[in-house]
Amino acid sequence: MRHFVEELDYLRNRLLEMSALVEDSVYRSVLCLSDKDPQQAQKVLQNEAEINRMEVEIDDLSTRLLALQQPMATDLRLLTSAIKINNDLERMGDLAVNIVERALSLISEPLIKPLVDIPSMANRVQSMIRKSLDAFVHHDGELARTVLVSDDAVDELRDAVYEELISYMERDPKTVRQGINLMFIARNLERLADHATNIAEDVLFLVEGVDVRHHAETRE
Amino acid sequence: MRHFVEELDYLRNRLLEMSALVEDSVYRSVLCLSDKDPQQAQKVLQNEAEINRMEVEIDDLSTRLLALQQPMATDLRLLTSAIKINNDLERMGDLAVNIVERALSLISEPLIKPLVDIPSMANRVQSMIRKSLDAFVHHDGELARTVLVSDDAVDELRDAVYEELISYMERDPKTVRQGINLMFIARNLERLADHATNIAEDVLFLVEGVDVRHHAETRE
Repeated sequence: MRHFVEELDYLRNRLLEMSALVEDSVYRSVLCLSDKDPQQAQKVLQNEAEINRMEVEIDDLSTRLLALQQPMATDLRLLTSAIKINNDLERMGDLAVNIVERALSLISEPLIKPLVDIPSMANRVQSMIRKSLDAFVHHDGELARTVLVSDDAVDELRDAVYEELISYMERDPKTVRQGINLMFIARNLERLADHATNIAEDVLFLVEGVDVRHHAETRE
Repeated sequence: MRHFVEELDYLRNRLLEMSALVEDSVYRSVLCLSDKDPQQAQKVLQNEAEINRMEVEIDDLSTRLLALQQPMATDLRLLTSAIKINNDLERMGDLAVNIVERALSLISEPLIKPLVDIPSMANRVQSMIRKSLDAFVHHDGELARTVLVSDDAVDELRDAVYEELISYMERDPKTVRQGINLMFIARNLERLADHATNIAEDVLFLVEGVDVRHHAETRE
């Protein structure tokens, strides 16, 4: 077994790699929709399989490190945070798959209107994922806080998407199915943002000892 | 500090109490809708506040037990499972609040049709929550497996609810807003079932050492 400090570095890097796969999946899931490109879906499914394997590996490693060592308070919190972040990332991989499934059912028909807010939501979500994991790896509380702010922006975009789609559906019943698929895509993007926010909250607790989970809490 | 074995018992009992609050919230959130009773919403919000407090307490206790003791393999897995189950239960409290928010916006208007499938989903979800936590407390793998089976039934009910609501919305655009609110309620119930399933999967891993997470996986 490597030295404990090296194992922790390895653990951080694996979580970073896992988050890069999640970010890639979010990007491709929306590209699948905007470019009507089903090949992106294949890549998202491959990413998900890899994310699932990594989840099991990281879970085992964290538990092993908890067992073999008597970690000090800081390392202990790092390990319990890693278990939670790992869990969040795995679910984020699933959410990207949900988006792709909806996207595939939309590919064969013309869209009600050009996509604007949904790609914009996806961009923000990707940036939130990157920042929350960078904040984790570099113990950067300030960076983690920017993720909490972005989450509010994503919620506002989601509300705008909902309202616009509802008005289309009310005007033209033929748009109901497509509108609902697009609403669920926006919903999944917002949930991805919520998971990135959970990670940022874990980082703040880890770095600053401030438990922000139940203040100004973001609803899933 | 109490003896380690007593602390573990206390931890199990707190998770059980937390799950009883979640179950109560699911019951009341649908009652709020079916009986048009806004007072149920108050109780769900109170439950959520209490669930949030318990989450912080259980998280601290689990981490403290990991730190102060050098737990053996089984106890270690119990503690890491407790951290995950705690996380699931907290999010389930939020999901019940989401249902109540949608229910409150539906209370002032007559419903498209009598509620049948949504209360039936809620009943199943309550039972899944109870069984998954009972399985955890009693290390009962067989009981945990019944939760996985119920999850498929909930998914089928959700699909039936979606299809029925979409056909209403396509026939009558005036039902779009209500239809969407009801779809999101069904969606939240299905996600509650997914969280109960996650808990049951954790229990199976704890009891049987079988990692069922990524086989026949249920999508969120």
